[in-house]
Formats: sequence, structure tokens, C-alpha cells
Amino acid sequence: MSAISRLSVISRHISNTNKLPRGDLGLIGLAVMGQNLILNAADHGYTVVAYNRTTSKVDHFLANEAKGKSIIGAHSIKELVDNLKRPRRVMLLVKAGKPVDDFIDQLLPYLEEGDIIIDGGNSHFPDTNRRYDELKGKGILFVGSGVSGGEEGARTGPSLMPGGHPEAWPHIKDIFQDIAAKSDGEPCCDWVGEAGAGHYVKMVHNGIEYGDMQLICEAYDLMKRVGKFTDKEIGDVFTQWNKGVLDSFLIEITKDILYYNDPTDGKPLVEKILDTAGQKGTGKWTAVNALDLGMPVTLIGEAVFSRCLSALKEERVAASKVLVGPTVEDGASPITDRKKFVDDLEQALYASKIISYAQGFMLMNEAAKEYGWKLNNAGIALMWRGGCIIRSVFLGEITAAYRENPELENLLFHPFFNKAITKAQSGWRASIAKAVEYGVPAPAFSTALAFYDGLRSARLPANLLQAQRDYFGAHTFQVLPGQENDLLKKGEWIHINWTGRGGNVHATTYDA
Amino acid sequence: MSAISRLSVISRHISNTNKLPRGDLGLIGLAVMGQNLILNAADHGYTVVAYNRTTSKVDHFLANEAKGKSIIGAHSIKELVDNLKRPRRVMLLVKAGKPVDDFIDQLLPYLEEGDIIIDGGNSHFPDTNRRYDELKGKGILFVGSGVSGGEEGARTGPSLMPGGHPEAWPHIKDIFQDIAAKSDGEPCCDWVGEAGAGHYVKMVHNGIEYGDMQLICEAYDLMKRVGKFTDKEIGDVFTQWNKGVLDSFLIEITKDILYYNDPTDGKPLVEKILDTAGQKGTGKWTAVNALDLGMPVTLIGEAVFSRCLSALKEERVAASKVLVGPTVEDGASPITDRKKFVDDLEQALYASKIISYAQGFMLMNEAAKEYGWKLNNAGIALMWRGGCIIRSVFLGEITAAYRENPELENLLFHPFFNKAITKAQSGWRASIAKAVEYGVPAPAFSTALAFYDGLRSARLPANLLQAQRDYFGAHTFQVLPGQENDLLKKGEWIHINWTGRGGNVHATTYDA
Repeated sequence: MSAISRLSVISRHISNTNKLPRGDLGLIGLAVMGQNLILNAADHGYTVVAYNRTTSKVDHFLANEAKGKSIIGAHSIKELVDNLKRPRRVMLLVKAGKPVDDFIDQLLPYLEEGDIIIDGGNSHFPDTNRRYDELKGKGILFVGSGVSGGEEGARTGPSLMPGGHPEAWPHIKDIFQDIAAKSDGEPCCDWVGEAGAGHYVKMVHNGIEYGDMQLICEAYDLMKRVGKFTDKEIGDVFTQWNKGVLDSFLIEITKDILYYNDPTDGKPLVEKILDTAGQKGTGKWTAVNALDLGMPVTLIGEAVFSRCLSALKEERVAASKVLVGPTVEDGASPITDRKKFVDDLEQALYASKIISYAQGFMLMNEAAKEYGWKLNNAGIALMWRGGCIIRSVFLGEITAAYRENPELENLLFHPFFNKAITKAQSGWRASIAKAVEYGVPAPAFSTALAFYDGLRSARLPANLLQAQRDYFGAHTFQVLPGQENDLLKKGEWIHINWTGRGGNVHATTYDA
Repeated sequence: MSAISRLSVISRHISNTNKLPRGDLGLIGLAVMGQNLILNAADHGYTVVAYNRTTSKVDHFLANEAKGKSIIGAHSIKELVDNLKRPRRVMLLVKAGKPVDDFIDQLLPYLEEGDIIIDGGNSHFPDTNRRYDELKGKGILFVGSGVSGGEEGARTGPSLMPGGHPEAWPHIKDIFQDIAAKSDGEPCCDWVGEAGAGHYVKMVHNGIEYGDMQLICEAYDLMKRVGKFTDKEIGDVFTQWNKGVLDSFLIEITKDILYYNDPTDGKPLVEKILDTAGQKGTGKWTAVNALDLGMPVTLIGEAVFSRCLSALKEERVAASKVLVGPTVEDGASPITDRKKFVDDLEQALYASKIISYAQGFMLMNEAAKEYGWKLNNAGIALMWRGGCIIRSVFLGEITAAYRENPELENLLFHPFFNKAITKAQSGWRASIAKAVEYGVPAPAFSTALAFYDGLRSARLPANLLQAQRDYFGAHTFQVLPGQENDLLKKGEWIHINWTGRGGNVHATTYDA
């Protein structure tokens, strides 16, 4: 806000001192997430003005959960805005897409220069970019904030990833960091970057969440189908793993799930659940963005495709009756060394997870370049350290690595992760070999390893691929450094007439 | 064209009989592809009118390559159109994107109802859908046609994949099928379907081409880095493979490439090529479309990501110095049974290729449902059988399979491919195990196998994933058929309060 408009705001305040607005934050959308965020903010001493399109929800909320707290109900957008201190801070927690645009349109007539609109929904970052630009032109500071942690996180401390107009940050920093989760006393919330950067980072978070879940599913499936473990035994393994390097929210809930028995017959309930996974699209957005930016984020890609394959239940059931597996499946060679089998799996999961996060940070680094953002990797890892679905001890290590070296080119190059993956390697390879031998799919473990072996290949077979492209489409190629000569000149795009067989081709051919 | 406008066309013809237009086809864009298609059509007795924005190219073409042939030069769009028989057939072979729209705009003032515009470029199918709709409203029959086979194919017989306005087909069928490649006497060209269907099928063709090339690269890399074969020895293997089930254009050119020595020093030229693969985007489009349609087209996905990883050359070189591989890499266990190693690899390539085509047809079947097209799978396979980059004996088998059973649910369910993959299985698994053991990446082989093992899994671990989603986000799940009870009701979306540990949860919890 400019100094002049700040003065005009103050003068208006003075002319109306008998009824100064009290609200620190306005919140639109009283579904569970919205209600819980309001209660969370009220717990931290903030006065929140609550509005919902269906106003009976406002009354119900005020008469029940919000009773006795510093929460004001509003029955119209005008009333909401009138009750807010300046600059107004209005947060939307509504369905992504048109509802966000609609509420922004409804808010605009009541807002003035320097007021802040925050979209806390799961918006796609290009939409946030667009809204940021549109509102910037109108003097409104727009913020798109990732909010992760589900209902429980919203109530007790979510992970918050705000990005947008940088001038908004000083006005929302305190409230955002107060209501956010804490990790070792530090808030899991920091400024992400300009425009759609906050929603972008939330999107990558969700993609990584897809990957983490897929990895856990593969470990579970291998224990079940190769190791013939019971759900109780698998639960015990996850309990054990949750005390080590894999300590995380997702491993913890997996153990709970595996221990959970159907009261009807005392049998594991998870085994009675239909194996077709749903998705809300954010994992897909990440994979599509990786393809758009040309970054090999293979693990999230395979995780999304695995959900797609799971959805083809009928086709799989039909296929299971006609497609044959390896003979070992008949039980020819059961797992005898169960401890080694489990230890190997733990390493496979750990190594694959390191790869997935390395890929995720590679993607974010590329996005920062492409979209002109300055992303703080240590800050992002810290935001994910607590509150959100992928929270883990592991993210503390990533925070430490990026704090130690903010310019770290690749997570795998940091000694901690380099050492970890080196140590994990033999168990990782052994687990994939078992999956291949037994015919149990482990697409995420496998793609992680292929990526690792590809990344550490100074030379990949793409030289042949370039030759093929030049052969059939005259796409040309470049010479490998150190191999330059009169035909293969440095810096040139070279075409060869490959159909001259047996090397019996004249040099003039190259000049074409 | 309506009967009345047909009559008016005839009457105009009669009033102008002394100068009847002679052109069967107009072609805009005299780059190599365009010139070669014109020469090809002229060889088949058609009179082609050639136009290019830079008209000196027209003159040069007419004075040289086109000399003495049934080819007419045009120096303006009007002249081009004036020289065409009705309904006019104008084919664009210009750069995809804005140039296509620009030429359509330039053509429209001179065309009349029932005339045909054909876009033979590499347009993205949503653009073709849009143009089809726009031109339909103006009475112009728009066709988007995939053209594959490169310069050589254009001259001697390309694979043509036309789709768009069905009323155009009878007017272009003869010329298209005459100039197309032939396979066992049948033209590699047939009507694909409405609107953007032709360009869609061409896009999938290119995606599959990415996959085929990646598979060949993995086989080459394994022979080189695991088997320590020379390029000559690898060339011999491809020569051998080209006589069997893998007989195809891409295997053939690979052999040529591997035999090709740099005349400077007589050493294999392919080894001097920079290993960073380029891409023109059509492979990426296929992967993005697969994600959009929720179809697990994993092999093309990995092929695209492999090109992305190859492009990160600097990062790979840096990684190769710090990331450690398996100890066997030091040469601890060299390949002793070279014949088995090569035979296994052949099976890995063959099986993976079957998976890739099965995934491609799954995608096209889903696209047909989603976009309302009727796609003829046998026809598509036949169009790809000759002329194009992925042409192969293998596509003859796919044509036969779909002719035998046009309703075939999945290519893998056909006895021929089912038997082939069953037979290939042990070599396929052994090859991947070798790659994993030696630390040489084989992402496409691996994802193909994971897909196969996933497809033949009546149950996948997505039940656990659904439980996780329900645990942290109350996303609900459905019961597995056969496991229904009072708590887990058929057809219902069920939510469980998982945090009630140890199965000690009251039934009422479920009613929330």
C-alpha cells in the first residue's frame, strides 16, 4: 500500500472510531477445513470473521463450535468486509475453479487498494498466476496458499505454503506462522515466492505424496504376495520402520490401518477394501508439468499411472485369468530369510524415497528458472517437515542439507543422501530382483533405480537415438566432446547420409 | 455438398468449359516433404498444383524436380484454387501452429461449400478438432492427416492417417490410397475417424515410435555395458534380430548405424555422437494425453522421461563422479553365456514392445470413447504396417489379431500375443535382473514388466492406498466384492474412523 492510501485509511478510521472493525482475518467457506482454520486462528488470539454462501451454516457454526470464541459471523460479503481491519485479509476456502473467481468478483466492489485476498484451496498454479496478474492490476494483493494436513491439520496446525504478491507477506506472516504446524519450534510456513509459486509447491507436495503412498503400497504388496506375511506381521514391520529413517506420518497411519480389524469378524479391514484408487488430479498435474518442463520426474509419473491401472479393475480381473506369471509364483522358492527380505525392502523404500524427493526438487528448481521465481529449498523442506501428509523425519534431513548448502545442485550429491543411498543400494536391487522374479509389480521401486543408474551414467544410449533420428528424419546431432574431427565439428549440427553402408562413404556426403 | 450447390457448380463449369481446371490436388508448402508428396502423386497420374509462400521456390521446383511432370505452378492462392477441379482438394504441408491457421484464412475467400482442406502437418489433435468445427460451420470439409515416413516415405509411399469430415473421404480416398505405402498389396491408408482422429492416431504413432527407439537403446546399452560387446557385434545381433519377430525399419536402421564407421579413423561413428536426445513434442503429447485420459501408458512415459534425463548431460557427468554403482560393475562377473544373454535380450525387447503396443491401443480405445470417435484398430495397425517409422512385421500380426476379433478387449488377450509374451517372459525377467544387478538403466523394459505383472494382478495394493486416503482425508472407499457385511455395504462409499486402534471401534462410528 502506498503511503498516501495508508493515510487515507487511517483518516477514515479516525472519522469512525466509535465502530472500529475488529476482524483480523475474514474467511469464506465454512466446510470442515474452513471451520477448523477459523478455530485454529481464534485459539491463537485472532478475531476471525466467518462467511458462507449458505448463511445458515454461519449461524450454526456461531451457535456451536465457534461459541464463546473471537469469531464474528457475517451474512453478506459486505458485512464480512466491513468487519475487517485494514488492510483487509480475506481467505477463501472454497472449491477450486469457478467458485474462486466468483468470490473474487463479489469481493472486489468492497475492497480497496492494498487489501489482500488469499486463496487457500487446491487451485492449479496457472489459475493462481492469472488471478495474481488480474488483481495486481487492480491494486489488490493476491496470495495463493497451499494448505496441507487435512481436517486435523487445519485445526491443530497445517503446513502452509503461501505465495503471490510479496507485499502481502508482512501483513499475513504472523497469523500464518502462528496457526501453522511447528517443527522443533519453527513454523512449517514461510513465503514461497511470487505469483502461483505457493500453489505450485503445494502441487509438487501432492505429487510427492502420490509417490510416497505408492512406495508404501509396493512394500506392503511384496510382503504380502512374495513374503506371505499376514497383515499383523506387515503392521509390525511398519511399526519397526517408523522408528528408523522412514519415520513419517504415512508409515504411521499404514501401521494403524494394517492393525485395524473389522469388528464383524476380527479380520483385517484393509483386505476388504476395493483396490481401485481415486485421485483428485494434483498428482497428474505434477506429472504433466514435469513433461512440460522436460524434467524426468519418473516416480510420480509411475505413481499416477499405477492409480490408473488400479482403476482398470475389470480388465485386470479378466487378465488375471489369461495372462501367465513366472513359475516361481506357485511357491517354488518361498522366502526363507525373512529378516533380510524385510531389511532389503526397508532400504528399497528409503532409497526410492530419496530419489523421489531428489526428482521433486529438480522439478521445482527448473520451475523456478522457467517461471522466474526464487524458491527457497530449505524453507520448502521445512514447510513439509510438519503438518502435512508427507511430514517426516526425512524432511528434517533435507532441510539441513539445503541449509548447509542452499546452492546444492542435486539432493543426491549431498553427503548424507549420497551415503544413505549407497548403503541402501544392495537391498534396493535385491528387492526389485525379487519383485521381477516373483512377478509382483514394483513400478515405483524400479523406476527409481533406473533413474539412479541413469543419472550416474555419464553416457546414456541417447547417442544411438540421435543417430536414428538423423537417419530417418535428418534431425542432425552434435559430436561428443573429445571426439571432434574434420567431419564432426564442435558446436555444429551434423547430418550423415547413413545409407552409405559399411563406412564406405565419401567425406563430401557430410557437406550436404 | 447439397444438390443445389452441386448444380450451381456444374452450371459454372459449363459456362467456362473452354478453360476447365485440371488440378486434382493443390499443395501448399514446398519443403522436401511437400515436394516429394507432389512427385509421388504425379507419378500416380494426378495433376498437382504447387504453391509456396516464397514463390521463387515454385519456379525452382517447376524448372527442376517437377519438370516434364503433371505439375502446375501457382504464384498465388487464387491461382492455386483456380487451377483445381471441384470440389477443390487443397493440402497444407506447412509448420504446425499459426501457419496452418493463416493459410486456411487465406484460402477461405476462394473456396466454396464442399471444398476440402487437408492439413498434412504434425498438428496437435485439439487444434485439428477446433479447425474441423470452425470450417464445418463454413461448409468446408476439413481433414487432418497424419503423414509418416519422412522424406523418403513421402516420395515412395508414406503411411497416411486421414481423419476429419467424413464427406471428404470419398473425394480423397483414391489419391490418398494410391500414393500411400502398400503392405501385401493393401494401402497403408484408411479413414481414421471424425474431427482430429487422424492427427490423434499420428500422435500415438509417434509416442510408440519414442517407445520403440528407447527399447532398442536399452538393448544396445546392455550389450555394450553389461556384455562388453563391440559395435560390430551389436550390429550383428540386430542383423540377426531383423530376420525374426523383431523385423522392422527401426531395427534395420540400427544395424546400419552400428556398422557405420567414421572414415577418419574407421571407428564406429555412433560412439562419437553426443548422448542428449532431442524431441519434437509429439511423444510428450501422448504421455500428457494418457495422463488426461487416466490410461497407464507407462512405456511411452518412461521413453519421454529418458530423453529428458539424457538432456541433463552436465548433471549426469557430475553425478557419475559422486554416485556409486553396484560392485559387480568392476567386472566381477562378466557375461559368459553370450548366446543366452542375447536371446534373453531379444525376448525382453519383444515382450516390452508387445506391452507398448497394447498400451497404445488401450489409449486409442479410451480416446475413441472419450472423444466420440469410431476407430478401426485393424485399419490403424495396417496403416502403420508400412511406410512409417514404426513399420514392422509385428504390425502385420496386430492387423491380423484385430481383423480376427475387432472387439478384442486387449491385445494381450489375443492368443498370438499371449503366447508370445508367455514364451518371452523368462528372458525378459532375466534381462531386467541383469540390468538391476549391473547398474545399467533399463526403464522401459522395467516399466513394461511392472505393467504386465500389474495388469495380471486381479488385486493390486490400491486397497491400502484407499485406506490411507480415507484415514487422512476422509475420501471414503468401496468394499471388495464378496466382502460385504453390515458395516461394508455394497455400492456405498464408506468412511472409517481409523484412529480407533486395535479394532475396538463401535459400529456407530461408521454411520458418520
